[in-house]
Amino acid sequence: MPSVWKRLLVGRPLKTAQSSEERLSKRAALAVFSSDALSSVAYATEEILFVLVAAGAAGLSFSLPIAALITGLMIVVVLSYGQTIRAYPSGGGAYTVAKDNLGQVPSLVAGWSLLIDYVLTVAVSVSAGVAAITSAVPSLYPERVAVGVLVIVLITVANLRGIRESAQVFAVPTYMFIFSMVGLVVVGIWQWAMGTLPPPGAGAMSRPLEAATAFLLLRGFAAGCTALTGIEAISNGVTSFKRPEAKNARTTLYMMGVILGFLFIGVTVLARVLHVAPAEGETVVSQIARAVFGHGGAYYFIQAATAMILLLAANTSYAGFPKLASILAHDKVLPVQLVNQGDRLVYSNGILVLAALSSLLVIGFAGDTHKLIPLYAVGVFIGFSMSQLGMVKKWLTEKSDGWRRGVVLNGVGGAATAVVLAVIVFSKFLHGAWAVLAIIPLGVAVSLGIKRHYTQLRTRLSLDEERSIPVAKEHYTILFVGDIHKGTVAAVRYAKSLQPTHIKALHISFDDQDAGEIREKWNRWGMDIPLIIAPSPYRELVGILLHYIREIERQHPHAAITVIVTEFICPHWWQLLLHNHTAARIKQELLHEHVAVVSVPIQLV
Amino acid sequence: MPSVWKRLLVGRPLKTAQSSEERLSKRAALAVFSSDALSSVAYATEEILFVLVAAGAAGLSFSLPIAALITGLMIVVVLSYGQTIRAYPSGGGAYTVAKDNLGQVPSLVAGWSLLIDYVLTVAVSVSAGVAAITSAVPSLYPERVAVGVLVIVLITVANLRGIRESAQVFAVPTYMFIFSMVGLVVVGIWQWAMGTLPPPGAGAMSRPLEAATAFLLLRGFAAGCTALTGIEAISNGVTSFKRPEAKNARTTLYMMGVILGFLFIGVTVLARVLHVAPAEGETVVSQIARAVFGHGGAYYFIQAATAMILLLAANTSYAGFPKLASILAHDKVLPVQLVNQGDRLVYSNGILVLAALSSLLVIGFAGDTHKLIPLYAVGVFIGFSMSQLGMVKKWLTEKSDGWRRGVVLNGVGGAATAVVLAVIVFSKFLHGAWAVLAIIPLGVAVSLGIKRHYTQLRTRLSLDEERSIPVAKEHYTILFVGDIHKGTVAAVRYAKSLQPTHIKALHISFDDQDAGEIREKWNRWGMDIPLIIAPSPYRELVGILLHYIREIERQHPHAAITVIVTEFICPHWWQLLLHNHTAARIKQELLHEHVAVVSVPIQLV
Repeated sequence: MPSVWKRLLVGRPLKTAQSSEERLSKRAALAVFSSDALSSVAYATEEILFVLVAAGAAGLSFSLPIAALITGLMIVVVLSYGQTIRAYPSGGGAYTVAKDNLGQVPSLVAGWSLLIDYVLTVAVSVSAGVAAITSAVPSLYPERVAVGVLVIVLITVANLRGIRESAQVFAVPTYMFIFSMVGLVVVGIWQWAMGTLPPPGAGAMSRPLEAATAFLLLRGFAAGCTALTGIEAISNGVTSFKRPEAKNARTTLYMMGVILGFLFIGVTVLARVLHVAPAEGETVVSQIARAVFGHGGAYYFIQAATAMILLLAANTSYAGFPKLASILAHDKVLPVQLVNQGDRLVYSNGILVLAALSSLLVIGFAGDTHKLIPLYAVGVFIGFSMSQLGMVKKWLTEKSDGWRRGVVLNGVGGAATAVVLAVIVFSKFLHGAWAVLAIIPLGVAVSLGIKRHYTQLRTRLSLDEERSIPVAKEHYTILFVGDIHKGTVAAVRYAKSLQPTHIKALHISFDDQDAGEIREKWNRWGMDIPLIIAPSPYRELVGILLHYIREIERQHPHAAITVIVTEFICPHWWQLLLHNHTAARIKQELLHEHVAVVSVPIQLV
Repeated sequence: MPSVWKRLLVGRPLKTAQSSEERLSKRAALAVFSSDALSSVAYATEEILFVLVAAGAAGLSFSLPIAALITGLMIVVVLSYGQTIRAYPSGGGAYTVAKDNLGQVPSLVAGWSLLIDYVLTVAVSVSAGVAAITSAVPSLYPERVAVGVLVIVLITVANLRGIRESAQVFAVPTYMFIFSMVGLVVVGIWQWAMGTLPPPGAGAMSRPLEAATAFLLLRGFAAGCTALTGIEAISNGVTSFKRPEAKNARTTLYMMGVILGFLFIGVTVLARVLHVAPAEGETVVSQIARAVFGHGGAYYFIQAATAMILLLAANTSYAGFPKLASILAHDKVLPVQLVNQGDRLVYSNGILVLAALSSLLVIGFAGDTHKLIPLYAVGVFIGFSMSQLGMVKKWLTEKSDGWRRGVVLNGVGGAATAVVLAVIVFSKFLHGAWAVLAIIPLGVAVSLGIKRHYTQLRTRLSLDEERSIPVAKEHYTILFVGDIHKGTVAAVRYAKSLQPTHIKALHISFDDQDAGEIREKWNRWGMDIPLIIAPSPYRELVGILLHYIREIERQHPHAAITVIVTEFICPHWWQLLLHNHTAARIKQELLHEHVAVVSVPIQLV
């Protein structure tokens, strides 16, 4: 990217020393870390209803028991992560916990699950955020894919510039969302209790397509489990809290759990009493808000807050994915390029990979949250299970303070999330979960291959067994000569200034007639460098050059060899199409030989 | 392309000296040069009917007068080219004639017209050839585009291998076609005269859509003028004839003209008396052949011969296009890559360009001959006119033997073809002729730009005003050092073997901590080359390196500068994704400086 554009887009570079971290109060931390978890309130209830509606009104009546079950699970998971925070005050993501306690392959399974999950968080949150917007502004509905991709592009640019994770930025939309949703639930239930809630609309309830079988209910449950995504965020960010970090983090986690549970149950209750069914073009939350508040300012406030927290949730992946990728790359199980920080101290490569993958998902799934959901949650629950399992192992091994409580809570959490994972995989396998289950082992295999490559490289390049440097006694230089012009003269001049001991010029001749002419010009311009004219009856270049190199190597096995080529540099790109690029070709092909190639550039400005 | 595949596909390389030419008898030459012209019999009549059918039966009744007019034009053009052969016994294509007599821009107009025409010849001939096949084997009809592209690929591979233009290869299908078509016309007209011709089928005659206006008749005439395409081929190949070349070539041209005229008129007469109308999925010739011979062996023989001569016609462009492109490239109005002959002594680049463009046309126009026809003929007739105009100029200037006859014949030819060109452009402008008229000036402009670039290059590189070579007195070498490992040691060893007078190693440090470590390792492995450790607070590489280079340039303006980098060479392509490619990046960026870069490759096999 030309520098000017890059500067405009991502801003001035920042110094490495400028990276710092601010410590967060509990209130600020709740805003920073809970957007992913809380935002799932915007779609979790709808996803349950979306499955159950296939069994008509009878199906929908199961929504509340399912939501209650999920809330119970939520409590277990929150308590489990409370234990993780206790044991990993320095931040314990599933990858770290699994690596420390379970070994490489389980840690890679957890790592890849989380990477996939981050990508899906962006795709799902952006799709749901766009759905919140298009519910309020239906005319945008046909353009939802374009809007979604545009949103991803904006978030990406913002992150490439490096958003400072200041609490202010996060606090406004997060507390707007909490405030407006709590208001919705309280006012809605009050109206219902008073009997002033408007009667349910005719609704778009279609006839039941299937019976409310156990399998359907399992699918509904699995769909609703997306409500749990993002709970782990606080345990990854313990170091950002004010002292005492672990205690504050745990308190914040429990606060978040309470809010999340209340909102999820509240929205599900309102959907039930209002007989809301999922509809194309309008979300369940939008339908509820319209019923409770009418089509006025309060309604639009809720839609705006919902859209904003969902975009914030997508944004948290932009911190999490590149950071995790960088940790994996540092452990040599992903390409090293992901370790690097860009101009603005952010992991630019990771950000770009995340943006590309999530955009592809939004486009591929036409920005439809319902279609993305079956892929989601699988990764999350693999992460949950691995993390809890690792914790149980850790408690049992270390027997540190309070290990019994830890084993019980993490054991129950691990067992519960493992069972739910099985349910999710079983019930959503054909709807897309298979894809995630296929990618994870593939990813693990790729990571192991990458690790092997870097390890081999390290061994091969190690200087540990090296004793001293034998310097090549002789140095042979070949000056590759095409036509003879000013560029050639520059190369001759350059070659002479190297003061080489053994140098020969080589011209490869396609036809005998021009050989004489070259010889004559060389006598004038060649500065006494001996010229070999090699005939090439098959009009080949590199092969003949290689032949001469091999001959030198055979006669002087320990000599260093250098080939000098001239390379034209054109000021305009289209002029590249007008040249044979012999120099570039020779450079490329000789890379695979034990030969150094010098390119003497000739500017054609 | 890996060498093994290339060998399998195109065969062993041929020596330059192996290029030779066989001299052709008149009978052989007719086969070699007339496939393009004669093959148009397969579609020219149909294209006339295709236009006229819009005016129903009334329209179709004009087909014979139009065909007669076109045949008259054909006679004029054949006689004109007879004069061209007389004046250019060494082969006079429109480009050569225009360049010699009219100047650069007219010659480029002619050249681009011909290039476009060659591409269209392939697209039209292949589409028509596939139509002949799918008329006989209707089940292939839905796959016509794929079949067309496959045919182009096969012709391309054959030409990359280098078809020897042996008369045998051409003679069989050409004479098969002549024989079978003459048979069809003679038998058909005999049956008609005897009254034994089967009564015309019900036909798919739709109701007239428009009146038989003058404009419609002009369009029909323009469409039929495709019958004239390919007549110029013999005049390009005079040198291939046995002695006396010009006389033999002229005789062959007249023979071809007679056969072409007879077949064209004959097919049109039969179409008229059989009331054949163009139908989707079956060609006019196929309908006639079925009516005359029934659905037996003779019918399939005609279809096969038609398909084969059309593919031969496409093949002639594979000789013409690359050869013309090579002539233009030699004149520096097209990229020099087109001058080169490949391994098999063919102009591989030209062949590949032709294959790509004609495939795009076949795909873009869905293999539909009718849609391609309006684009065709424009280029042909521009070529005809330019060539005849150039000839008139030549006769008038040189006043050589028989110049009066030349002026008259070429003058009439030039005027007639210019008028027809105007008719074609006028009547088919909206149907696609505009595209050709837009491309030609664009092409001319591109060619002039290319010529300007090469001329500037030549001037800039010219040694004419150079007197002697001032050798740089000093040579500064910078050894770029990343981590210190075996690769670095190899680079140090290489640098030392150059015995440089001024050398410094440069390490660019992103963080202060590793600087100490690098310094310590360097003391052990650096062989007394002084090491500069440059801090890069913004994690930048090339910028810092450039800064040091500029400093040297400032202090020693006449010194030569060399930068040495190490470059890892991985055995597998996917391993490329696992490295930062710092060396490649430095090489690329420093190309634009007056600095030579040496790459010391480190094989990681």
